[in-house]
Amino acid sequence: MSLKVGFVGMGIMGQPMSKNVLKAGYNVTVYNRTVAKIGPLAEAGAKVASSPKEAAEGADIIILMLAGPEAIDAVMDGPEGVLAGMDEGQTLVNMSTVTPAYSRQLDEELKTRSIVSIDAPVSGSRKPAEEGALVILAGGPREKVTDLEPLLLTMGKNVIYCGEAGQGSSMKLAANLLLGIMMAGLSEAINFGEKCGLPVEAMLETMLSGPMGCTLFEFKKEMLINDTFDAQFPLKHMIKDVRFALQTADENGAPTPVGHTVFQLYRQSIGHGLSNMDFAAVKKVFERMSDSVSSSPIIPGV
Amino acid sequence: MSLKVGFVGMGIMGQPMSKNVLKAGYNVTVYNRTVAKIGPLAEAGAKVASSPKEAAEGADIIILMLAGPEAIDAVMDGPEGVLAGMDEGQTLVNMSTVTPAYSRQLDEELKTRSIVSIDAPVSGSRKPAEEGALVILAGGPREKVTDLEPLLLTMGKNVIYCGEAGQGSSMKLAANLLLGIMMAGLSEAINFGEKCGLPVEAMLETMLSGPMGCTLFEFKKEMLINDTFDAQFPLKHMIKDVRFALQTADENGAPTPVGHTVFQLYRQSIGHGLSNMDFAAVKKVFERMSDSVSSSPIIPGV
Amino acid sequence: MSLKVGFVGMGIMGQPMSKNVLKAGYNVTVYNRTVAKIGPLAEAGAKVASSPKEAAEGADIIILMLAGPEAIDAVMDGPEGVLAGMDEGQTLVNMSTVTPAYSRQLDEELKTRSIVSIDAPVSGSRKPAEEGALVILAGGPREKVTDLEPLLLTMGKNVIYCGEAGQGSSMKLAANLLLGIMMAGLSEAINFGEKCGLPVEAMLETMLSGPMGCTLFEFKKEMLINDTFDAQFPLKHMIKDVRFALQTADENGAPTPVGHTVFQLYRQSIGHGLSNMDFAAVKKVFERMSDSVSSSPIIPGV
Amino acid sequence: MSLKVGFVGMGIMGQPMSKNVLKAGYNVTVYNRTVAKIGPLAEAGAKVASSPKEAAEGADIIILMLAGPEAIDAVMDGPEGVLAGMDEGQTLVNMSTVTPAYSRQLDEELKTRSIVSIDAPVSGSRKPAEEGALVILAGGPREKVTDLEPLLLTMGKNVIYCGEAGQGSSMKLAANLLLGIMMAGLSEAINFGEKCGLPVEAMLETMLSGPMGCTLFEFKKEMLINDTFDAQFPLKHMIKDVRFALQTADENGAPTPVGHTVFQLYRQSIGHGLSNMDFAAVKKVFERMSDSVSSSPIIPGV
Repeated sequence: MSLKVGFVGMGIMGQPMSKNVLKAGYNVTVYNRTVAKIGPLAEAGAKVASSPKEAAEGADIIILMLAGPEAIDAVMDGPEGVLAGMDEGQTLVNMSTVTPAYSRQLDEELKTRSIVSIDAPVSGSRKPAEEGALVILAGGPREKVTDLEPLLLTMGKNVIYCGEAGQGSSMKLAANLLLGIMMAGLSEAINFGEKCGLPVEAMLETMLSGPMGCTLFEFKKEMLINDTFDAQFPLKHMIKDVRFALQTADENGAPTPVGHTVFQLYRQSIGHGLSNMDFAAVKKVFERMSDSVSSSPIIPGV
Repeated sequence: MSLKVGFVGMGIMGQPMSKNVLKAGYNVTVYNRTVAKIGPLAEAGAKVASSPKEAAEGADIIILMLAGPEAIDAVMDGPEGVLAGMDEGQTLVNMSTVTPAYSRQLDEELKTRSIVSIDAPVSGSRKPAEEGALVILAGGPREKVTDLEPLLLTMGKNVIYCGEAGQGSSMKLAANLLLGIMMAGLSEAINFGEKCGLPVEAMLETMLSGPMGCTLFEFKKEMLINDTFDAQFPLKHMIKDVRFALQTADENGAPTPVGHTVFQLYRQSIGHGLSNMDFAAVKKVFERMSDSVSSSPIIPGV
Repeated sequence: MSLKVGFVGMGIMGQPMSKNVLKAGYNVTVYNRTVAKIGPLAEAGAKVASSPKEAAEGADIIILMLAGPEAIDAVMDGPEGVLAGMDEGQTLVNMSTVTPAYSRQLDEELKTRSIVSIDAPVSGSRKPAEEGALVILAGGPREKVTDLEPLLLTMGKNVIYCGEAGQGSSMKLAANLLLGIMMAGLSEAINFGEKCGLPVEAMLETMLSGPMGCTLFEFKKEMLINDTFDAQFPLKHMIKDVRFALQTADENGAPTPVGHTVFQLYRQSIGHGLSNMDFAAVKKVFERMSDSVSSSPIIPGV
Repeated sequence: MSLKVGFVGMGIMGQPMSKNVLKAGYNVTVYNRTVAKIGPLAEAGAKVASSPKEAAEGADIIILMLAGPEAIDAVMDGPEGVLAGMDEGQTLVNMSTVTPAYSRQLDEELKTRSIVSIDAPVSGSRKPAEEGALVILAGGPREKVTDLEPLLLTMGKNVIYCGEAGQGSSMKLAANLLLGIMMAGLSEAINFGEKCGLPVEAMLETMLSGPMGCTLFEFKKEMLINDTFDAQFPLKHMIKDVRFALQTADENGAPTPVGHTVFQLYRQSIGHGLSNMDFAAVKKVFERMSDSVSSSPIIPGV
């Protein structure tokens, strides 16, 4: 008899992830605030809960894939919230990106009700989510993470055990701090080359041929060449992750001079109205800061 | 009958590169200021010149692989210099990293003597140099670059044509600006994770599994885990390349906020006595800046 | 008959400020968690409350001068807290540095109990506090600020009206963002000059003679020359204020690239154990980052 | 009999400075590339030289007040240059801002011809230049600086002896590094406050009342309130000075993280077409980076 999974959050990531869980034969009940986004899962055979509480009730495992702490608090609390539907012996797997401090606090609250919590955020965006090829970064009791591996591997290609509760979140922030730096670095280097008169295509060929070649740059290649930035991983989420990383760095005494510099660049992107574009659109901030472009609008039509 | 190649500069890069040219059947004459470093090439069958002039005389192609502008000026000028040995119809291939301004000036000087110059710096460090797997970034007349491809491909896996004289140098600086940012970014992220209590091995597995996975991080993995930094690409060369990139950015009106931040980090590394270590040793600057490490010496025994 | 003032917080600032209120003839009751610090005020004639509640009861005006939000929450809440002792018609004057968001939230809470709140943080450190020469930055109802001016001017030389509730806090953060930048800037410039071989005395004479001459640099002159940093304004408070400024900037879409850079420097100072020294000790971070000082301990004896 | 002074360079600074020398009774011969700017001096009684050489010939002291190294080289070299007109026993006083390396090189060249050189750049802009209230930062032989004091004090209110040749230049760069940081810091703080809803006037009153109050901020107050930036000290000169400071810091192993950050801001100002405005116009870069201003032109009419 298959395990019952309650899955809360049907965004860019939650949709393909829950679909992969469903396809693997789990008994999946989904919930999303915006009902319209539930359609594809319902068609694929998932049950639909009318409240977070209903998604949680009777599930063996409840998975959260939400935009951040505020969104999690909104589905957890209240008479129709996940917490109202949970009972001892269940497991909560929070795959959303939050700070380690938040994960540890959630873990402590759930412990008082004999509920195990795992923080299991992911490295990878829409495409690996669709392909079940995410990297899953898990924090919590090691045996519980081992037990959950078959479920987690329906969504990801590997599970990296990071340590006790909160350490999955720490790992995610370390990874996305680097991700944010690499994308800002690529943008700065490409913009530099353009100002020197180099063709973008030759630059991307160079970056991809050498030791820096990676699927991140491969994914962003067409965006940079075509100057269109449909969101694989929206800028508004990147800025949130860098913000969490800097806060956590501050709490732990870790210097982050590069992180602070790129934070300012993503922050500017948000201000320039690029929030919903892919985070590679940080490239446009460099264009805007460059010589001779002072009067061109950053978004067509604005 | 094989082409005659004069090869000047037998450093970390020049040695394996010239060896690959030699193995491919070219008639190679080598020169190096420090004679001791010529041994391996002489044993492998290269002729040894007693001056830069002698290496240049009668060669079809003269290749330079030197530490920078000062080193190039030192071998080019004077009665025993390369220029004194060159004649019209020869080709100079400068594979050293310099600014595009320097390359253009050199090109203009050689043009007056009917000598063609190509700036052809490389992406990749010692290991790809040994394997003939460098990425070669060429600037100069397109037909001449095409003619030289068989020679260049003895050292590299591909040749990327970047544009007129100086554009190979521009491309190299764009690439190494990104390289410097990525290594500083990895160091910052790893140090952040360590302060949060994450194991280094799990962090590198995470970075290598996801979209950021690249051979650069693969190469530096053992260095970071073992905290030993034998130079593949010495820090003193990285700081030079970032300095050139920032100067060129300033001349071309390209904003480089991330580059400036990482420049300060590499600059500190130099000050802390890490010049001859691999540039991954920038990691040690983050350790030094972190909480609670204020009294530990950065270099063992110092 | 003189107004009754409850004054909570007897730190570096609170002691001289409350003493000036007392000297002006107000009827002052003081409270401090650490009783030892109350002595000088008691000797000078202040009444001593045994709880925050007691300091608040029956006072016309309650003044808070505390280290930050946590300290304020600690004295406000609970059965022996300030709130338990307050009644409608009283006025709360919070002179501690907090974020505008915190001030607005406090104001809204107090409004529900018909208590008026004024946020009135100060510009200036120990010395101007002793001399009654602080600059007082007031947010809240304009008429109420006008009414309070005679009281506020016992502590300060002028009162600047900044706008509605929270705007005193905004102004304080703007001022201390600049203060943090100026001190870090002076440290960077002095350290730069020292590396160039300039005498510190001549540098300070230069900075003080020209258009940059200000009492801030005058106050820090002896510290920098003698390399001793007894706290006028401790580094741990400066880092807190810059942190608040950056958070508030992030919330309001204000770019703060210089603030982020100096935050990292003060953050390093904290990590190096300089928390309780004057914030001018950020100078030592520059020394530590400089060439050739890698092995010297930053604090004597550590 | 009064000393003969050759004064080369009639820019924003050179005009009022040479006028003050003239008014003090010296026998002054002026030269400027653009003849139109010589008018006021000629009317005031200065002799006019038709070449730099002529300004130098027979003078006891030759003063240079030029935009930088290129401008100095242009007037010094060639058959009609200053050097062609100089003879042993004369003194060259270079009041232009250059790097210490440049000053030392110039000094060594002149020494071979038994000409003493003094580097004596100034702190202060147009207004103190007009009032003879500059701070003069002198490097070179101490006795020679002492001999020159009566002359120098016609232009400045004090002379600060900084050390051997080149140290006047070092001091100037230290001072203008701080100046650049303070102006960028004020701009960042004011822009931050504006985004928080604070009135500019109240902010400037706050900054001027407290320990940060200085004539620099007093001078820029009206510019910031009225959003007009007529050049007292043009942005193009400030960026040059910060660039020199960063180069010199790099050569001397001095960390300049704040300097690098503000350099990028001034660099952007130049790119946005603000070169000839006062350096306080760096404020406009903050506006441009802020939320919601993305489509407004930075220069009216552009």
